[in-house]
Amino acid sequence: MNEHAVQQYLHDHIPLSKAMQVEVLSVQPDEVVLRAPLAPNINHKETVFGGSASAVAILAAWSLLHTRLKSVAVNSQLVIQSNTMNYLLPISGTFTARSFIENGGDWARFVRTLERKGRARIAVTAVLEYEGQQAGRLTGEFVALATAAH
Amino acid sequence: MNEHAVQQYLHDHIPLSKAMQVEVLSVQPDEVVLRAPLAPNINHKETVFGGSASAVAILAAWSLLHTRLKSVAVNSQLVIQSNTMNYLLPISGTFTARSFIENGGDWARFVRTLERKGRARIAVTAVLEYEGQQAGRLTGEFVALATAAH
Repeated sequence: MNEHAVQQYLHDHIPLSKAMQVEVLSVQPDEVVLRAPLAPNINHKETVFGGSASAVAILAAWSLLHTRLKSVAVNSQLVIQSNTMNYLLPISGTFTARSFIENGGDWARFVRTLERKGRARIAVTAVLEYEGQQAGRLTGEFVALATAAH
Repeated sequence: MNEHAVQQYLHDHIPLSKAMQVEVLSVQPDEVVLRAPLAPNINHKETVFGGSASAVAILAAWSLLHTRLKSVAVNSQLVIQSNTMNYLLPISGTFTARSFIENGGDWARFVRTLERKGRARIAVTAVLEYEGQQAGRLTGEFVALATAAH
């Protein structure tokens, strides 16, 4: 899936991504980068609302797993189990969320477990950046469940 | 602040709350209850998107502190520092978020510290409910900073 396809998928299936005006800047095997502007995500202090920051970070993390899972032989459904978000700096304009798997070896183990057991979990990190500084950091734990081919 | 005033404040200052169609059902000193429908918060599995669930929970937690701080003699600004969200059950329709301070004694200590030191932190819990079941649980850590009277 390229940037356009992922963005279309998000806007079509998760209307909040459209309300937040999320754009997909980059889709690579090892990272996905999303971008969102301030206006639809603003709060009463004229910075990005924490709920928007979290939601964009979750979308970045989910998109990375979703696109990577397309390259695997097992059809699966992804479920988020938990996430922890740290808000590091106020964000006063357009920001990005870059997702990646912190421990490279986790992906191979995740796919192996999914193939063998039909269920596997993995942690994904998403870093929010604003004006070149890290403004937030999310860790999300996801579970993939093998499903019948379709 | 009553329910109408809080809802108006959220919709006016945090446009995402309007996009998520958040309603304020109840504002009490010990809890705030928000409600949101499925349609604007749906995901590709036709359940509530995790980012929406988190954002509504954060709004509930923030609204409780915001309204309680109005009753305190110190003007202050609230900042979210971190949150942890656990997604317990899929949500397939209208859901609520009920926020409260788990340890009742925390509020008195928080206000005392804010008055003395001009800065205090507190944890707030928000529970998501769908069809009478707990579907998610967020803990958010907030910091209040004393500001000049206005």
